[in-house]
Amino acid sequence: MTNAPREIENLIDLMARLPGLGPRSARRAVLYLIRKRGLLLAPLADAMHQVAVTARECVVCGNVSTSEVCDICTSEKRATGELCVVEDVADLWAMERASVFKGRYHVLGGTLSALDSMGPEELRIPKLVQRVVDEGITEVILALNATIDGQTTAHYIAEELEGRCAVTSLAQGVPIGGELDYLDDGTITAALKARKAL
Amino acid sequence: MTNAPREIENLIDLMARLPGLGPRSARRAVLYLIRKRGLLLAPLADAMHQVAVTARECVVCGNVSTSEVCDICTSEKRATGELCVVEDVADLWAMERASVFKGRYHVLGGTLSALDSMGPEELRIPKLVQRVVDEGITEVILALNATIDGQTTAHYIAEELEGRCAVTSLAQGVPIGGELDYLDDGTITAALKARKAL
Repeated sequence: MTNAPREIENLIDLMARLPGLGPRSARRAVLYLIRKRGLLLAPLADAMHQVAVTARECVVCGNVSTSEVCDICTSEKRATGELCVVEDVADLWAMERASVFKGRYHVLGGTLSALDSMGPEELRIPKLVQRVVDEGITEVILALNATIDGQTTAHYIAEELEGRCAVTSLAQGVPIGGELDYLDDGTITAALKARKAL
Repeated sequence: MTNAPREIENLIDLMARLPGLGPRSARRAVLYLIRKRGLLLAPLADAMHQVAVTARECVVCGNVSTSEVCDICTSEKRATGELCVVEDVADLWAMERASVFKGRYHVLGGTLSALDSMGPEELRIPKLVQRVVDEGITEVILALNATIDGQTTAHYIAEELEGRCAVTSLAQGVPIGGELDYLDDGTITAALKARKAL
């Protein structure tokens, strides 16, 4: 396409498959990498190789890890009896950035969806029930996306865990710094229904 | 930041330095890469390593290449006596995608700029004059950006080459598919001044 050498064309093609990059931004990124080949391209190649060799899924919670069981699952400090259920690792990272939750996680890897044929088995929900029993979990906090699929999954998990432990979910309402004028009707309705005494 | 293993944090930090990616899209890209580690991450690491080892600047024209002299400069077919002057390799690739120019290139690597202390030497302009003489160039086509710096550089090169060969520049006017209502005044003025008889 660009008449560049085969190696460079190949790199552009692979980069263009990353989410958020298209052919145009892939070309731009590759030219930038070539200009900084000592400072950025070589270290990036090494870092990718490292991750390709070491990255795996934590067998307990489904987090990405470089060992069989991830750091959060092995940390004694985080055996608080609270388990936070998230859809994917990006959500786990978002929770960790807030650094307010001190327990452990369970990563579903998706939501229940008839269309994508994602059933409870695929989402490791039986494994979640097993963990609640084995680890003496007292509360499961559902931190799922506020979408139809997310809420369906939340209800299914709540039913599965009934009588075994407390099941809660993240509060819905006005985001911090949010302006009412820019909020959708659903959020305002949820916030009004869940209003609190000051 | 995300409590991910050191190798993964390191990869996110490096990815976030690419143009067009920030910390958020770097995290997203890295999670995607980890999910596709066999299909995409490992080949990408290899491709980057390949390019890091082989990529260099063509000593004649400044194009990126994997050999001392790039494919365009070595191709006998492209010794047409026409030389196209571009600001950087991205512009060369854009010209090649149009696949209408059959001659060779000269990549300046920037534009004249007092602020960034880019002088004629840094832009390989003496080398351009030398090539015009050595390669028996009959026409130099200036394909520089239509910015103040680009036009200053064009005028400087035209003066340097006066009497040695014809110097032309890309036409300015209404882009193909462009609507007048969305064009700026400068473009409309240029298009009107350069109007053609049908």
